Amino acid sequence: MQIAFEEARKADARGEVPIGACLILNGTVIAAAGNETRQTNDPTAHAEMLVIRRACVILNQERLVGADLYVTLEPCPMCAAAISFARIGRLYYGAQDAKGGAVESGPNYFRSAICHHAPEVYSGLSESESADMLRRFFSEKR
Amino acid sequence: MQIAFEEARKADARGEVPIGACLILNGTVIAAAGNETRQTNDPTAHAEMLVIRRACVILNQERLVGADLYVTLEPCPMCAAAISFARIGRLYYGAQDAKGGAVESGPNYFRSAICHHAPEVYSGLSESESADMLRRFFSEKR
Repeated sequence: MQIAFEEARKADARGEVPIGACLILNGTVIAAAGNETRQTNDPTAHAEMLVIRRACVILNQERLVGADLYVTLEPCPMCAAAISFARIGRLYYGAQDAKGGAVESGPNYFRSAICHHAPEVYSGLSESESADMLRRFFSEKR
Repeated sequence: MQIAFEEARKADARGEVPIGACLILNGTVIAAAGNETRQTNDPTAHAEMLVIRRACVILNQERLVGADLYVTLEPCPMCAAAISFARIGRLYYGAQDAKGGAVESGPNYFRSAICHHAPEVYSGLSESESADMLRRFFSEKR
């Protein structure tokens, strides 16, 4: 989780929304990234999407069975579906995202009939650190 | 829509799930793609994601305001959220995807409280052509 936070801080320094993620398989960090939507003009470049895509390239496989994904904020529907498609084993996240999350906020994608693989979910890790970082970022933008 | 179907046929020929998409802005085709999940080992490489990402690169902008997205199958939650994030104006699709769709099947993402931009949606375009193509693909795999 500390690696995910470090990526969130680096995203913040680049002017990106401060969210970070890290993917671990068999105790090894495979990929870590922060949001890159602004610098790459890519609305799909959320931290989770980047670590999933990069880990698949690095491991040369389409599925990340048994992997642990750490992310500083509750995933949105796009990232939740990608987590499911990649068959990630465990999802750990920080703050809840009441406005855009799709795990405990909004429709719980992992419990919906159209979700065919759900990871184990552990939420609330370093929750206040994650929420504070985002609050600061958006208050500075206003 | 015919461009999207042509991309679906090309995906089929590559051994990919036969789904295609095409993005149009101001009457010009900006990007067209079929699924590439297998050839690139990327579980996020759905046709819609690829055309959104490529159109944003081509236009050098993070949002595709006023764009029309044509896709041969009802988008999944990942693609539906990406369509929303990219601020696409109109979504046209072929067959319904009862097992994985997030527009008229499963939770309707565009009508959920966590969706902050919904496109106009037109469904059922060349529905049987789209469904037949997918049925043939999966029956051949079995």
